[in-house]
Amino acid sequence: MAKTAEIIAVGSELLTPERSDTNSLWLTEKLNDIGVEVKLKTIVGDDDARLEETIRDAVKRSDIVITTGGLGPTEDDITRQVTARALNRNLEYHNDLEVHLRERFRNWGREMPEINKRQAFIVAGADVLPNPNGSAVGMYLAENGKHVAILPGPPREMQPMFEDLVLPKLRAAAGNVSVYRRFLKVVGLGESALDEAIAPIYTAYPGVQTSILFNKSGVDVQLALRGVDEKRARDVLDEIEAKSVAKLGRAVFSVQGEAMEEVVGRLLSRSGKTVSVAESCTGGLMGSRLTEVPGSSSYFIEGVVSYSNEAKMRTLNVPKALLDEFGAVSSEVAAAMAEGMRERARTDYAVSVTGIAGPGGGSEEKPVGLVYLGLASESGTKTRRLMLPGERYLIRWRSSTAALDLLRRQLLKAT
Amino acid sequence: MAKTAEIIAVGSELLTPERSDTNSLWLTEKLNDIGVEVKLKTIVGDDDARLEETIRDAVKRSDIVITTGGLGPTEDDITRQVTARALNRNLEYHNDLEVHLRERFRNWGREMPEINKRQAFIVAGADVLPNPNGSAVGMYLAENGKHVAILPGPPREMQPMFEDLVLPKLRAAAGNVSVYRRFLKVVGLGESALDEAIAPIYTAYPGVQTSILFNKSGVDVQLALRGVDEKRARDVLDEIEAKSVAKLGRAVFSVQGEAMEEVVGRLLSRSGKTVSVAESCTGGLMGSRLTEVPGSSSYFIEGVVSYSNEAKMRTLNVPKALLDEFGAVSSEVAAAMAEGMRERARTDYAVSVTGIAGPGGGSEEKPVGLVYLGLASESGTKTRRLMLPGERYLIRWRSSTAALDLLRRQLLKAT
Repeated sequence: MAKTAEIIAVGSELLTPERSDTNSLWLTEKLNDIGVEVKLKTIVGDDDARLEETIRDAVKRSDIVITTGGLGPTEDDITRQVTARALNRNLEYHNDLEVHLRERFRNWGREMPEINKRQAFIVAGADVLPNPNGSAVGMYLAENGKHVAILPGPPREMQPMFEDLVLPKLRAAAGNVSVYRRFLKVVGLGESALDEAIAPIYTAYPGVQTSILFNKSGVDVQLALRGVDEKRARDVLDEIEAKSVAKLGRAVFSVQGEAMEEVVGRLLSRSGKTVSVAESCTGGLMGSRLTEVPGSSSYFIEGVVSYSNEAKMRTLNVPKALLDEFGAVSSEVAAAMAEGMRERARTDYAVSVTGIAGPGGGSEEKPVGLVYLGLASESGTKTRRLMLPGERYLIRWRSSTAALDLLRRQLLKAT
Repeated sequence: MAKTAEIIAVGSELLTPERSDTNSLWLTEKLNDIGVEVKLKTIVGDDDARLEETIRDAVKRSDIVITTGGLGPTEDDITRQVTARALNRNLEYHNDLEVHLRERFRNWGREMPEINKRQAFIVAGADVLPNPNGSAVGMYLAENGKHVAILPGPPREMQPMFEDLVLPKLRAAAGNVSVYRRFLKVVGLGESALDEAIAPIYTAYPGVQTSILFNKSGVDVQLALRGVDEKRARDVLDEIEAKSVAKLGRAVFSVQGEAMEEVVGRLLSRSGKTVSVAESCTGGLMGSRLTEVPGSSSYFIEGVVSYSNEAKMRTLNVPKALLDEFGAVSSEVAAAMAEGMRERARTDYAVSVTGIAGPGGGSEEKPVGLVYLGLASESGTKTRRLMLPGERYLIRWRSSTAALDLLRRQLLKAT
């Protein structure tokens, strides 16, 4: 039986409309990797009674309980004393922690405020988890097969503390199970069409847990396998991957969890080719995504955001006659934008996007969501027509993804 | 006493490392607006026992309980029957719901799968909340001062159902209290410097709840006032706003919650001016942000992503001598980029960014995080030097924010 975990995030700021708890996503990934299943997450404010009940319930029903936050020096920081109460333990004063804290403050050139003395109190019987990155130490208790870790809220304090001091203990408690994962990232197929295509493959492996997640860039297929040795796991996942790729072909753009712009960047780097982009409705998004990848300056040369018709003419050499005859959102102009960009930047490839992202600007003939892509290369120019659903933000995002995908498929053909 | 609420998000997919519950942020805002405080949020998987305990606890300690998700037709969708059990009620079959569902499916040109019959069962005594956007109806119960709303998970189904059918009831239950809010968005000041400056102002108004939130674009100050009439609330918030703006000056870029690019867009629209951008390290991000705003085509004319030195020379006319003498990341090149862009696009303003976003490319003399901005206009060219902390993503984001802010301040001066 897999061990179960609950994560409790403490802090009233996490109950505002602006803030969400992100620590739990990171912790969930780490816990899943050692075969522990997260069964519940709670976000609770600086509220004694609710936090106490939450911790009591969690310890009763789950093997592992992790709290984050509420370990600061102020009145609002209640995790320390409430956890002690929920576990029917006292708080113990640790003189060495106070001495250490005073020293830290002196090193920063300040006197320790008296209020920080609170941070020298520890739940009786808990191991102290030192915090090299902040003033709040963490705590860890194990008793009767239950594990409780009390961690600070700031990710740069919480993460190293968890990885270095808590994870090894939980890994041992979880039986040193390893979980092997594989991600297939798929573009250009809907969730149900994808599932229809690959369900006959993955259902033949009952030990493999498969989840299919739809997101703004495409669909992710996640395969997970636990409780077998590494070689066997690798073999099984390789088999499913190979069969799925054989079935789906180039719709699978990554088997390593990379983003589309990373895949395109890798293909460009590997082949020593260069790219430039000419954007209209995406307004710079395609360039921004390509250059988000470190090292992209070796293949990304130049981009032009030709938002106005004048910009298309003067910087991309799009003929006025084309704009007049076909309009800015047309296959002809997409092709001319890509060709003009390639000529200007002297790159191996140039990709263009022109479309109507909305909410305004649509017509019966050319509705919001109509987008044309262009790709110019040594071997000529091709274009694609898309009709995208959704809001402005999504239309722009999906246009840029489709344009990068067009380049990806061309790069795969060329190699 | 303010009414208290708990939000329970149901669904195992919300306990994966990839997904977080976003419904609760939206619900929190709506609840805060009617004076209801969210005290706890729970995310629970398709796990009968845990969900039952969560609902029982929630109803015991909070006035309002809202669940989202788990109302689909499959085995995994457990909210319906578990809520009934937690509230000690039966499920009742509603024939009219089944008839209606069959009709919906027929309108889609399909037979209703038998499994969807499950969606015709309702917690006994609950009001049915029709769902024009999906097959799962919601439910609402009120008893002994407790309110339970059971809502579907997809936001486009949940949100209209909540606003139209649940919110009016909760507003009445919460005593028709209105909460008045004001947001001051501040750029270029740290969290503590900001608090030091305005704490003497807001602490003079003890009824006003103030929160200061740091985010990637700046710092937000949120003021909230409840339990007074609208005129009095508006007067008090106007007063604090006026005093804060007097103290902080142009560091306050919005009092209406707008993003920086919206503020810049409004100032450009209003003054009938146009802009173009020349980007190096931001790679198109500035253009992408400016054009994210609907209607931006009236003032945004063109952008150039001059990632290579060649692009800076050929498209922006940056003299080779400047690049050789000062390097691409320099005040001189930032100025030349802005001037070259303005000349090309013939806009009133041109903004440029050149810098080292990392992780590679830094040196002792020019470290990662060093960024120069340029702004060219009729009245000449100015530049700014920034040293930004953080990772590549943040350096790029903050550079683009600072560049937009430079333009904003110029636009304010010009009017």
